[in-house]
Amino acid sequence: MSQSTPLNITLIGAGTIGLSFAALHLDHAFKPGSNPLHLTIYDTRPDIESYVTQTLPTYIPFSFKKLPGHGPTSYSVHINHDDSPHTITFNGDLKSAVSSASIIQEQGPESTSFKIAVWPEIESYCPSDTLLWSSTSGIPASTQCVDMRDPSRLVVVHPYNPPHIMPLLEIVPSPATDPRVIDRTLDFWKNKDRTPIVLKKETKGFVANRLAFALLREAIHLVKEGVASVKDIDDLMTSSMGPRWAVAGIFKSYHAGGGAAGLEGFFKNIGGTVQACWDDGGKVNVEEGWEDDVFRQTRQFYGEVDLTERDTLTRRVLEAVRRD
Amino acid sequence: MSQSTPLNITLIGAGTIGLSFAALHLDHAFKPGSNPLHLTIYDTRPDIESYVTQTLPTYIPFSFKKLPGHGPTSYSVHINHDDSPHTITFNGDLKSAVSSASIIQEQGPESTSFKIAVWPEIESYCPSDTLLWSSTSGIPASTQCVDMRDPSRLVVVHPYNPPHIMPLLEIVPSPATDPRVIDRTLDFWKNKDRTPIVLKKETKGFVANRLAFALLREAIHLVKEGVASVKDIDDLMTSSMGPRWAVAGIFKSYHAGGGAAGLEGFFKNIGGTVQACWDDGGKVNVEEGWEDDVFRQTRQFYGEVDLTERDTLTRRVLEAVRRD
Repeated sequence: MSQSTPLNITLIGAGTIGLSFAALHLDHAFKPGSNPLHLTIYDTRPDIESYVTQTLPTYIPFSFKKLPGHGPTSYSVHINHDDSPHTITFNGDLKSAVSSASIIQEQGPESTSFKIAVWPEIESYCPSDTLLWSSTSGIPASTQCVDMRDPSRLVVVHPYNPPHIMPLLEIVPSPATDPRVIDRTLDFWKNKDRTPIVLKKETKGFVANRLAFALLREAIHLVKEGVASVKDIDDLMTSSMGPRWAVAGIFKSYHAGGGAAGLEGFFKNIGGTVQACWDDGGKVNVEEGWEDDVFRQTRQFYGEVDLTERDTLTRRVLEAVRRD
Repeated sequence: MSQSTPLNITLIGAGTIGLSFAALHLDHAFKPGSNPLHLTIYDTRPDIESYVTQTLPTYIPFSFKKLPGHGPTSYSVHINHDDSPHTITFNGDLKSAVSSASIIQEQGPESTSFKIAVWPEIESYCPSDTLLWSSTSGIPASTQCVDMRDPSRLVVVHPYNPPHIMPLLEIVPSPATDPRVIDRTLDFWKNKDRTPIVLKKETKGFVANRLAFALLREAIHLVKEGVASVKDIDDLMTSSMGPRWAVAGIFKSYHAGGGAAGLEGFFKNIGGTVQACWDDGGKVNVEEGWEDDVFRQTRQFYGEVDLTERDTLTRRVLEAVRRD
């Protein structure tokens, strides 16, 4: 794309995730060499315009100037007071919101019927080469696409919250997804300095949540058994596996832990202990009575979490591990 | 303790963990206001002296000057060329190695019989108020202490490897451990800018490993099912949950994820998905046939892990999240 070709991205739904994607796209638009960005937001909530223009600057210091004209309200977007080619438009009409988009990112209600219904409509209004991405955390593309004329266009692009900070994007194609759609999706995100990972199969909950939920289950078990408090477990994580896994994932970590024999040596040395922990491990289930104590401890220790501090520290951690 | 009171620490065993503890203690000895440190290493391997004096400088740029005298070999320890009050002594005689220690840290063979046998011997040679710590990753103090005259003295101080970098120490008392021993142990580590966490109960594998092993089990399951490669899972972790958990543990993270309703809101929103992932989750076991592929992928992706790079990046991450 030449410097002057505008990039048209439409976000379907601007809740927490949509807003964070808006911040991400706008943030990258201001990097040197980027194309003019025309971001369109389609969301049916009545206060969407004030919500977005007031909340986005709490993420990144954007300012907005209303542009003259009829039809949907548009703003130019600024990071300083200079002229800016980047705009954001609030459009409550789905057809015109998507009609010139080169990328459409859907993060509407997490409802199968909504998603099944919305894609054929989007598909009928948008250009034939528009990339169609769903941010769903659990409804696979193969389910969402059942009423589409061309299911090969749809792919799940599941972020790790908040996407304007966290690099991970789980790219989850359905069996019908066109490999060229996957390639174009990967290219887009790699150019945005993100970490897109293509899953080889659709699986319940995708990968990141499944890994985290497995650890969560054990953590709840250990609280329930009175081994450690909610706060103990959190402090323990931030002083050990968190920093470790910011640097190296679990396989690489244990590969190093096994010395010259690597991961095989690790299992040779302590495979018995690993299995014993698994056997003894937390098979707690939702609504089995641990909730009251775990929720109470969590409220008591944390009250309301300061997301600004979390996000500032997370940026610092990501900066610390950049290898380039 | 006054500035001039020496701190005598004896390490029983100087393998990977013992050596890293030696680096930690020596490193802290050079901080302003610290007392002179006399570190004694008791280890039966014949090349222990050259192993320690050659390996420690790869962790932290110490240098060693052999001190004159008879008996066990001692070195003064330096970080620059100035005079230094800090010494390291190699003593192959258990009795004299522990006889003036104020702290004894055991990281000998991970064998129940070794540990049961060594403590009564140590106990008979050392002062009555010496702190007795085992670095074991799995043999509880209540098992180790059975032949001690005074089992109330022993407590497990389980590090997260490598302890000279990772702040976590799991403090795991037996039911017999004297609360004053726990308090003195906590004081010591807090003064060393570490994160000691006292477990309320002895439990198989303690807490950090159990949490990590639970995630490992799910990770192996997802590789085995062909959802993601070893490398995919590692890349996914370093670009999402690793940085997140370096900043906030799992309960605080999901408490923030639930919005105003906190962790309770999180489970109200997606408790069903969490349970579905748990139900579908990885109940793989050791030696069930996944090993060949997982070990092969790990070797192929990583070869030999560069521990220097890992440790440099880990220090940077820990520095990034320091709130003071």
